[in-house]
Amino acid sequence: MWIQKKINISLKSRGFHIITDEILTNTPELKDFKIGIFQLFIKHTSASLTINENVDQTVRTDFESHFNMLAPENQNYYEHTFEGPDDMPAHLKASLLGSSLSIPITDGKLNLGTWQGIYICEHRNHGSERKLIVTIQGSLF
Amino acid sequence: MWIQKKINISLKSRGFHIITDEILTNTPELKDFKIGIFQLFIKHTSASLTINENVDQTVRTDFESHFNMLAPENQNYYEHTFEGPDDMPAHLKASLLGSSLSIPITDGKLNLGTWQGIYICEHRNHGSERKLIVTIQGSLF
Amino acid sequence: MWIQKKINISLKSRGFHIITDEILTNTPELKDFKIGIFQLFIKHTSASLTINENVDQTVRTDFESHFNMLAPENQNYYEHTFEGPDDMPAHLKASLLGSSLSIPITDGKLNLGTWQGIYICEHRNHGSERKLIVTIQGSLF
Repeated sequence: MWIQKKINISLKSRGFHIITDEILTNTPELKDFKIGIFQLFIKHTSASLTINENVDQTVRTDFESHFNMLAPENQNYYEHTFEGPDDMPAHLKASLLGSSLSIPITDGKLNLGTWQGIYICEHRNHGSERKLIVTIQGSLF
Repeated sequence: MWIQKKINISLKSRGFHIITDEILTNTPELKDFKIGIFQLFIKHTSASLTINENVDQTVRTDFESHFNMLAPENQNYYEHTFEGPDDMPAHLKASLLGSSLSIPITDGKLNLGTWQGIYICEHRNHGSERKLIVTIQGSLF
Repeated sequence: MWIQKKINISLKSRGFHIITDEILTNTPELKDFKIGIFQLFIKHTSASLTINENVDQTVRTDFESHFNMLAPENQNYYEHTFEGPDDMPAHLKASLLGSSLSIPITDGKLNLGTWQGIYICEHRNHGSERKLIVTIQGSLF
């Protein structure tokens, strides 16, 4: 059994944001799957997806601070600079974090750990609505 | 055809550890799949999974050394510090490496390269047993 | 419905290279899938796969420059050095970027964003032909 749909995530400020509830609200079909895989894919090269701590906002703030150290702006060796100083770091961050997530489905729910949430990572200063594709596959009840 | 099970990985010391054999011992059903995908998911935000060199222990030691450089403790901009100096670096390392692996199944076996092994990456000084979900899907012989 | 095949990618110079067309030429079966997942796996520990910007060559050059900063050669703490100074950095880069990609299939095509391309990342000075496994699964038209 396969289900696929687009989800548009409204514009987020630069940084890391939890979207677990937004994703679940858009995928009520999940409850019909006994075992499966829930795949999220982001159709962009300057925003990304990851899974991390879902309670303390300072974790997300620290992610933004630290990824700005791992992929700083204005490195003297950057050649891809015509879209602004935040562009090349955004591409690097996107590949460090990745463009997709695969999460097991168990008994109609995402089988996440207690402290795991889905993050969208907006790496541009002025991003845009971000397009995700959700693909759900598995065996039904 | 879908199979899903929990595997608890016993407490490991901080660092990188090969668990390929431990995973395979727990999934004898793998031999029944002709073509498929073997998905591993870790239900934690301060431990992670990756695939890398499976022979030389110094590769894993160097991973620990280098990831301690990539996500150092006690950065002055960290705000999420109440669980100790190893906590925020653990979250960062977990997202840099990722929480899941998808490995092709071919003729009843994981189709890994000769030098590829499955690593569990324990990022806390005093972690705990780590819970994995294995989801196997594919076509049978 | 499942299809799986090997694709050998000819030797590439150290750096980041787009292989989207090479992959698609080798997988004409993709057009038969209405909804699905296209999985690419690289059977090596010193080369990797990622998705990023598909037009400007300087993005790929900047990736090479920046990953050489993130995982430099000749760190004094490296112990795994007998295969040369480019070996341990190659292993680190491979795990930072990852060994597999999962891309949604929609109406017989990869559902990539406009600017997304598939990169093979060759981290060795003198690599070799690289072996990929493509696993396509989904529902047919």
